[in-house]
Amino acid sequence: MAEDEIIALERAALDRWGAGDPFGFLETYADEISYFDTATPRRIDGLAAMAAYYAPFTGLIKVARYEIIGPRVQRHGDAAILSYNLASDAVRPDGGEVTIHWNSTAVYARIEGAWKSVHSHWSLTAPPALQGVM
Amino acid sequence: MAEDEIIALERAALDRWGAGDPFGFLETYADEISYFDTATPRRIDGLAAMAAYYAPFTGLIKVARYEIIGPRVQRHGDAAILSYNLASDAVRPDGGEVTIHWNSTAVYARIEGAWKSVHSHWSLTAPPALQGVM
Repeated sequence: MAEDEIIALERAALDRWGAGDPFGFLETYADEISYFDTATPRRIDGLAAMAAYYAPFTGLIKVARYEIIGPRVQRHGDAAILSYNLASDAVRPDGGEVTIHWNSTAVYARIEGAWKSVHSHWSLTAPPALQGVM
Repeated sequence: MAEDEIIALERAALDRWGAGDPFGFLETYADEISYFDTATPRRIDGLAAMAAYYAPFTGLIKVARYEIIGPRVQRHGDAAILSYNLASDAVRPDGGEVTIHWNSTAVYARIEGAWKSVHSHWSLTAPPALQGVM
């Protein structure tokens, strides 16, 4: 099923990201990828720009474990919108761990027979103190 | 063109939102809508849940003006991914204005002949101090 395949692609990219390898995500991206995260001043467009953006993270990120919460795939023909919350236990330089909660949208499209990510949006899930006050 | 139609739908919803009327966005949403914003502890699923979530905002929000920055529509068959940055000049209760910068993803799908929003993700654009340090 496309749903299972897409979640497996995302999980493989997360596994590599957590081992310090951003190229797992880059390999899921189509040339047309568009991207937002918590540090982007504007949307990033295109695979070359994403490669330049991710390169400095190589080897710097370590995730001890993560949990994909409530993954949902909404299929519309050759497009599939994967959304989930993520609890990611990041390892700090001092060896301590901190759990970071994310909102993740990854839109996949079937391009030349393969599912590729054409849009990704990462944001922090609201801390409890902010919930309900927007 | 679908691209122009989708941007026009989004702009109409933003216009109503800025006048205190969240139902403009609700009217763009399909029953299957999935949603993240800066205050959601988990993804919200479904039109009924979104109506309950938005209802308390009725009449509370006033936007003096907004600018859609860099709108892009990525079309894949019956799906179209609209992404943009938004600079929104919100009016505070004391009459002062504050500019809020957003990242916005809105995935539209053609359902029974009409473009409806099936996924929306809102997050704050990073303040300059955070850019480059993620």
